[in-house]
Amino acid sequence: MNYKRRSEAVREALESLRLDALITSNLANIRYLSGFTGSSALLIVSGRENVFFSDGRYTEQARLEVEGARVRIVKGKSALATASAWLSHERKFRRIGLEAAQLTVADRDAFATAVPRSTRMVSTLSIVERLRMRKDSEEVGRIRNACHLGAELFQGLVKTIRPGRSESEVAGELELAARQRGAEQMSFPTIIAAGKRSALPHGRASNEPIPSRGFVVCDFGVILASYCSDMTRTVHVGRPQAEARAVYEAVWEAQQAAIEAVKPGVSVGEVDQAARKLLQKRNLSKYFTHSTGHGLGLEVHEAPRVAAGQAEILRPDMVITIEPGVYESGKGGVRIEDTVVVTDSGCEILTPSPKEMIVV
Amino acid sequence: MNYKRRSEAVREALESLRLDALITSNLANIRYLSGFTGSSALLIVSGRENVFFSDGRYTEQARLEVEGARVRIVKGKSALATASAWLSHERKFRRIGLEAAQLTVADRDAFATAVPRSTRMVSTLSIVERLRMRKDSEEVGRIRNACHLGAELFQGLVKTIRPGRSESEVAGELELAARQRGAEQMSFPTIIAAGKRSALPHGRASNEPIPSRGFVVCDFGVILASYCSDMTRTVHVGRPQAEARAVYEAVWEAQQAAIEAVKPGVSVGEVDQAARKLLQKRNLSKYFTHSTGHGLGLEVHEAPRVAAGQAEILRPDMVITIEPGVYESGKGGVRIEDTVVVTDSGCEILTPSPKEMIVV
Repeated sequence: MNYKRRSEAVREALESLRLDALITSNLANIRYLSGFTGSSALLIVSGRENVFFSDGRYTEQARLEVEGARVRIVKGKSALATASAWLSHERKFRRIGLEAAQLTVADRDAFATAVPRSTRMVSTLSIVERLRMRKDSEEVGRIRNACHLGAELFQGLVKTIRPGRSESEVAGELELAARQRGAEQMSFPTIIAAGKRSALPHGRASNEPIPSRGFVVCDFGVILASYCSDMTRTVHVGRPQAEARAVYEAVWEAQQAAIEAVKPGVSVGEVDQAARKLLQKRNLSKYFTHSTGHGLGLEVHEAPRVAAGQAEILRPDMVITIEPGVYESGKGGVRIEDTVVVTDSGCEILTPSPKEMIVV
Repeated sequence: MNYKRRSEAVREALESLRLDALITSNLANIRYLSGFTGSSALLIVSGRENVFFSDGRYTEQARLEVEGARVRIVKGKSALATASAWLSHERKFRRIGLEAAQLTVADRDAFATAVPRSTRMVSTLSIVERLRMRKDSEEVGRIRNACHLGAELFQGLVKTIRPGRSESEVAGELELAARQRGAEQMSFPTIIAAGKRSALPHGRASNEPIPSRGFVVCDFGVILASYCSDMTRTVHVGRPQAEARAVYEAVWEAQQAAIEAVKPGVSVGEVDQAARKLLQKRNLSKYFTHSTGHGLGLEVHEAPRVAAGQAEILRPDMVITIEPGVYESGKGGVRIEDTVVVTDSGCEILTPSPKEMIVV
């Protein structure tokens, strides 16, 4: 990964915000800028260098992983304490940015107490997150690999869905298969939501049994080489009635319409609108109760939000999900989700699983 | 659960801090005070009432779960936006506490902008977390059930450890078994760390194969009825040499010494010291690089920290882990961990798995 170029892009952003340094506390941002994969760290990016802070548990790991930054670890001290002590001697920083959406009030207060009186702490939002929106080719390659593993796993998953088995058991078998094929972990708690529970947009697999008839929403992702996949397919247990078929077709058409809307220069709000408009025609838009998608990369949810009214303009190499759904409380729901990468003229689907309705 | 009594205890704490209200943003605290299990909420506890805020995704769930609080959900608005709007009309609050260790700077700023000019935002630490340290009998019962499930799962886990199998596969089978027996989820990423990797205190299961000889640290927990379990056992693959046996015995003795130190009136620092002293005698204390344990309940890591120099005094009904370890970089490591509840005169071990060295 080209950590140097990424850090240069942060420096340019700092300059335009008249900041002398940025305290990065979001671990995904730290991984993006330094390669560190551990769970406790801070990274300070200034005009002239990157300084990485962690604690004694990560001495060895930091030595192996961190690139393009001086590493400072003090035995018996937290990353916060070490970074605060370092900042207390840096009299050249007049304005230091902090990541307001991640840093806690307590940590901010610790920094504010430590820095020289001439230093001002400035809230910033999404400096690194905005850079992370556009992926380089290595990142797209890793996301593609993760999505292909997801599609392979889905083929096996379909065979395990049977009435009477618990959602949780089906999820557990999927997760075991993911581990057997090398996934580092799941990218979020697996959703297997059957029957009436398919009407819950975030129906994490429960101990409820799969009923003998109805939809089963399967929404899951793996992490492979640090990058996430995310896909949803909805299968039907038992012969679907005409109404179920119609809802499924409508969601599929809405998803297709949104995918067709994805291209450079279009806003994410317009992509959302494309899916919503299709469902409006079928009188189903009132059941589409969430946004159409989200960015994906080191984190399973990252910028941009693909949602109504969002103005972010799509650019080549952004990776987003497209996942409209229809949820009728007490009855059931359907969601179909792909991960796509924006190309020069449209987009490429990274999740190759077929979308024809599967009946089990 | 007795949400009313818990809220009364918060009100008493607020009174002694001269606070008119507390904005609770830590989801475990919100669950503790209201029963809500979703992933987006705020709870404001004031002298006269609790008001619960969430967003449209959780309307139904809040109706089913939330006890002892007025529920306010506004369609299309986040919990933060709804709570801010509500606070903007509350002119009687002169001092409002916030949870500084959890609330982000951005959210704090949103509240600070919303509240009337006469209102002051005050950082607080651990108001609810301190109440959560002492469990009631229903909580201890749930933790005991989770720990018993963990012990059952360990019996099966031992049978799956064989040279050549990947750590991750062993972890995946454990997690599937956990789901099959009703666990809601694992309480943290499962640690299966074999051979040289057993020297990593946080060696999350990797794709590395289990070698033909050496220790395998197995550290895992389940969540059952919202409460966590946590246990570690270290098994040995192949015939252990005398040195490995000696290290194992030393860790076991240290763990036993710490357990014997647990009783009301003793500080958690003294418990930590009991384990460390035993390892000092064997010249192994330099390899014991983490603290002896932590509180456990709705979260797998909660107050108190059982660590060197910590002054917190043990009281009946606190639940803590006791988990000394010895880690020799490049060679291997051993950790033995139980969860215990403090009784009137000592403690009761909640994790019943035997501690004799298991050779597979």
